[in-house]
Amino acid sequence: MGEAMTTAGPISHERLLEFCLTLLATNGVDRSQAQEVAENLVWSELVGRENFGLIRLPVYLDRVAQGGLKCPCTPVFEDKSPNISILDADNGFGQYAGKLAMQKAVLMARESGTGTVGVRRSNFFGTGAFFVNHAAHEGMISLVMSNSFPKVVAHGGLKPVFGTNPLAFGAPRENGESLMFDMATSALAGSTVREHIAKDLPLPEGMAIDKKGEAITDPARVKEGSLQPVAGAKGYGLALLVEIFAGVLTGAGISGGVASMYNDLSKPGDNGHFVIAIDISRFMAIKEFYMRLEGLIATIKASQPQGEVLLPGEIRWRQYRKNKKDGIRLGPVTRQAVEKICDQQSLAVPWQAAMSRA
Amino acid sequence: MGEAMTTAGPISHERLLEFCLTLLATNGVDRSQAQEVAENLVWSELVGRENFGLIRLPVYLDRVAQGGLKCPCTPVFEDKSPNISILDADNGFGQYAGKLAMQKAVLMARESGTGTVGVRRSNFFGTGAFFVNHAAHEGMISLVMSNSFPKVVAHGGLKPVFGTNPLAFGAPRENGESLMFDMATSALAGSTVREHIAKDLPLPEGMAIDKKGEAITDPARVKEGSLQPVAGAKGYGLALLVEIFAGVLTGAGISGGVASMYNDLSKPGDNGHFVIAIDISRFMAIKEFYMRLEGLIATIKASQPQGEVLLPGEIRWRQYRKNKKDGIRLGPVTRQAVEKICDQQSLAVPWQAAMSRA
Repeated sequence: MGEAMTTAGPISHERLLEFCLTLLATNGVDRSQAQEVAENLVWSELVGRENFGLIRLPVYLDRVAQGGLKCPCTPVFEDKSPNISILDADNGFGQYAGKLAMQKAVLMARESGTGTVGVRRSNFFGTGAFFVNHAAHEGMISLVMSNSFPKVVAHGGLKPVFGTNPLAFGAPRENGESLMFDMATSALAGSTVREHIAKDLPLPEGMAIDKKGEAITDPARVKEGSLQPVAGAKGYGLALLVEIFAGVLTGAGISGGVASMYNDLSKPGDNGHFVIAIDISRFMAIKEFYMRLEGLIATIKASQPQGEVLLPGEIRWRQYRKNKKDGIRLGPVTRQAVEKICDQQSLAVPWQAAMSRA
Repeated sequence: MGEAMTTAGPISHERLLEFCLTLLATNGVDRSQAQEVAENLVWSELVGRENFGLIRLPVYLDRVAQGGLKCPCTPVFEDKSPNISILDADNGFGQYAGKLAMQKAVLMARESGTGTVGVRRSNFFGTGAFFVNHAAHEGMISLVMSNSFPKVVAHGGLKPVFGTNPLAFGAPRENGESLMFDMATSALAGSTVREHIAKDLPLPEGMAIDKKGEAITDPARVKEGSLQPVAGAKGYGLALLVEIFAGVLTGAGISGGVASMYNDLSKPGDNGHFVIAIDISRFMAIKEFYMRLEGLIATIKASQPQGEVLLPGEIRWRQYRKNKKDGIRLGPVTRQAVEKICDQQSLAVPWQAAMSRA
């Protein structure tokens, strides 16, 4: 690894952002969306979530070219009450729609205490952690959900009916490193399956089943079958909760009504999202909230005298600090994908440019 | 079993309600609380959730006598915005506080779209399913959470820091049998541990650990150790979510600040609850919601051609229908508990009275 890194060394997040912005803009993405998507992708790389980062650029660009991701798009909010709004995302990027939805939810929460936004006609939005972190920096606790293309069976079912339907939660900390909890309601995230394929690692039993309900442990075979919900009936209930909030209630696609980003590049996903922001300052002074939360955190940390208990998001913030300081080292699959795009489009590979400057 | 049942046959829910009301009233519970608690306990029996039913009467009555459950209590709402309120439950029954909180959340949601209520200085509230079902019958989707006395470790921790911190979700169906999802964020519910003790059944590994982190499979030994969160980091994140909403944000006890209902009968629990109600009719006509939800349900049901996929709450409704029609058969531990109370208080055992009438 050490040797290879000399030709693909770390790259600053500023330079990576500039690269993404340019790439998106020259491939037909309008300025508003390009800005939000680039920030989202680079943030995902900063916190070490490769699977929500630049690795998706090839499919995003193809979808923009073929119309599955509409550029420009005209998202429209329809306010339903002082604290409820529905966003018709006009088939643009989910990262863009998700950010607009959270900004709106925060605004409504600032005015009236809580803000609830349902989003329809959106696409895959990346990691919910990005949005709950945004809300946390506004002094809000938040919940974020999204439905997605079916890959997951109901508990006891054989055919996929749910997406990996992520559920995210965030809360601010005084040190700025918010709690960020982001779970797939499936036993495995889709991204974890791809990681196992890339690393040629078998899956544990109980994660995926074939069409007859037999366990699949070869990650490459997961696409022939289905993922299981996490923890049986519990994950099933949570997946259903997400599908009802993000799909049924928003007017978005439901179950098979949501399209895969990979199958038909011209077909919008019609993913739905659901966002709730709650203004902490309506409950108590933010200082008091911080004091109470840090008391809980101290209790959690002290519950393991021999080792370390991590908070949701804690590893992400460590990675973030390191990557901000030392630069981002893109993973091999991401690097390859970016190099291929640069080659096709006669662009300078950003880390090579960075190297030649150094 | 068939033989024994002739002396402890089924009892109508009306008669059981009457019994509970009388018992609570003659043991110092004020009328308002007695009504809500009795309805909650009998509903729990109707839907077949014995562990939230009359089985808890002995400890409740002892706690009323010793001051851990305050009767009468004076719950006070403090409105924080048109859609946020905090209920100081004045150390009364959690079943009472939970119902008041949900009623208030529904009222606010009717007015402004969503209603959010935090509850502090409450006690154990039974099953969250009771409250989400109430909201569903008002045309609302809802979330209900409660923290509780620490029994559950953080993922990677050794000492208990969370209660079993239940998370419930409900949504109405046109047939009146609402979806009711109610999960403990622990690998096991406390009630399941008691069931395993009663039935002398071992626990699977991964459910509980001793003080050194070794697996406990003997349910009677769980009290020496701790429960694990469900599904590792995911259950841990959900338990933390519940603790932050229900404990940190409401001003209730946090972690060890919540007292067990069994340890000190004179000490209020200071449990916190958190309730969100969302008025479906702000998003779409309820008929359209039903149509969309039933479409999803049909997809789920069709996903298992050889068997049956159950909806969250479906078994409860089957039990409910049966018990409403045929009467409730209390479980043996509950029967014994009630018989003992009746003996101590020179009351007629309700099913014996029913038998002698028959």
